[in-house]
Amino acid sequence: MSADPRLSINQATIKHADLATALRVTEQAGVEAIGLWREPVNEVGLATAAAMLTDSGLRFTTHCRAGFFTMPEGPARRASLDDNRVAIDETATLAAAGAAGSTAVLVLVAGGLPEGSRDLVGARERVRDAIGELAPHARAAGVTLAIEPLHPMFASDRCVVSTLGQALDIAADFEPREVGAAVDTFHIFWDPDILPAIARAGREGRIATYQVCDWKTPLPADVLLSRHYPGDGVIDFAALTRAVEATGYDRDIEVEIFNADIWADDPAAVVARTAAAFGDAVAPHLAGARAVSA
Amino acid sequence: MSADPRLSINQATIKHADLATALRVTEQAGVEAIGLWREPVNEVGLATAAAMLTDSGLRFTTHCRAGFFTMPEGPARRASLDDNRVAIDETATLAAAGAAGSTAVLVLVAGGLPEGSRDLVGARERVRDAIGELAPHARAAGVTLAIEPLHPMFASDRCVVSTLGQALDIAADFEPREVGAAVDTFHIFWDPDILPAIARAGREGRIATYQVCDWKTPLPADVLLSRHYPGDGVIDFAALTRAVEATGYDRDIEVEIFNADIWADDPAAVVARTAAAFGDAVAPHLAGARAVSA
Repeated sequence: MSADPRLSINQATIKHADLATALRVTEQAGVEAIGLWREPVNEVGLATAAAMLTDSGLRFTTHCRAGFFTMPEGPARRASLDDNRVAIDETATLAAAGAAGSTAVLVLVAGGLPEGSRDLVGARERVRDAIGELAPHARAAGVTLAIEPLHPMFASDRCVVSTLGQALDIAADFEPREVGAAVDTFHIFWDPDILPAIARAGREGRIATYQVCDWKTPLPADVLLSRHYPGDGVIDFAALTRAVEATGYDRDIEVEIFNADIWADDPAAVVARTAAAFGDAVAPHLAGARAVSA
Repeated sequence: MSADPRLSINQATIKHADLATALRVTEQAGVEAIGLWREPVNEVGLATAAAMLTDSGLRFTTHCRAGFFTMPEGPARRASLDDNRVAIDETATLAAAGAAGSTAVLVLVAGGLPEGSRDLVGARERVRDAIGELAPHARAAGVTLAIEPLHPMFASDRCVVSTLGQALDIAADFEPREVGAAVDTFHIFWDPDILPAIARAGREGRIATYQVCDWKTPLPADVLLSRHYPGDGVIDFAALTRAVEATGYDRDIEVEIFNADIWADDPAAVVARTAAAFGDAVAPHLAGARAVSA
């Protein structure tokens, strides 16, 4: 089997596969890269995970995920920042263990409003403060923190960073190699300002990762699981992918899907289906593909 | 009973009440104003509805709703625009029938992507085009079209206008008395740019109506019904209400709640609960309330 050389399988797409299975089915599908999640990595231990990744021959694209630092000062905030530092170190280790072309990117989901709070503005300021505390550690480790704006339906309980423009405003205080943004089609496709925001992200050197999956309604009861294979919904992958490519982004592109039906499917089948969907819905809009057809 | 003099009950909050019941329970609760929906108005006929409204002594605040004009040119689009013109005329009639201080405001929900389309940009352009066709009719009728940005979770299937800034950009082509925006806390609270957007809306004379209800997670299976009494969720009514008041907005404020549990409750009890919630969560932040406490 083969797959587009820029496709990376985000491990969340095959959530119930352990690390060994995830690496195996990805490599066997002819996919060249993978993004990992902290829980399955820590299940086997970081050193073992790194060795398994090296053995797989796959590139490493992102580590998912850290963040969750919107709480006010106190022990919980300190514990979260400490855990973020651990995640930064894990990212550096895994990026070094992956094949050539791996990227040391740690995805940050900011977190929601603290229990009982209505102060979104304050929570957003605390995101900036947290990244300010983490940036030196990221720089020292050679890791880029990718602030991920999540769809506004998650603004109150999961991620107070809701638009790419807002992520870029936060990142602007830092060097691009330290702090960038995750551009995930599911979370940003609705934004009337998304095309200029992507152009700005490129101009400012902030696209740390480009992730794709689709949006379809009606949403399932758990809206967190409303992500679909590219092409199965309404997202315009042509416009978004071309906008990202136009910035000069030339690295791997992850497919990250949270979907109970897809999670219940056989991981090898899911990776094959993902590769096919990526080939149909995303690959034709990559810069290389356009050059070929030109 | 009494209620804040600026509270208006949007009829959707007591969806299962017919027009007579809605008017009666609103007036009996000491509420001075009401926003109506087209279906219950047309159930009794416009002339009868207007007479009933006059008899109630209530102010009329908005007519809900028209719009749904994102489809490409063709018979369906023509039918939609014709229906919007009827809704404009209904609005003028009802505003004239309401008590002094009534406002002739028609709320527009733009509509989602046409079936099978992924072209959000095109759908958004067709919203602008539709409003361009309707504006002369609105001007002639003395009606203000209120473009309502809906929460981005509805961007694909219900309303391609997703932010207040986007609504203002569309409105900018028209006179403020013809085209404004609906500012509904539920739909816009998450927006990192909302406070400057509200200030801009005020500066440009575009706040056609201010509507309040709350946001709480987890969302119910039908996310359309995830609206709550002010104070029952996480929205910062202090910040948003003060921002709206700071623009000089001094008209009625609607509470519009879609919620299956609230709809199942007794309409009189719902209006009483709404008045109490408004008094607790919103009224303290009105300009008059601040003047009193100063």
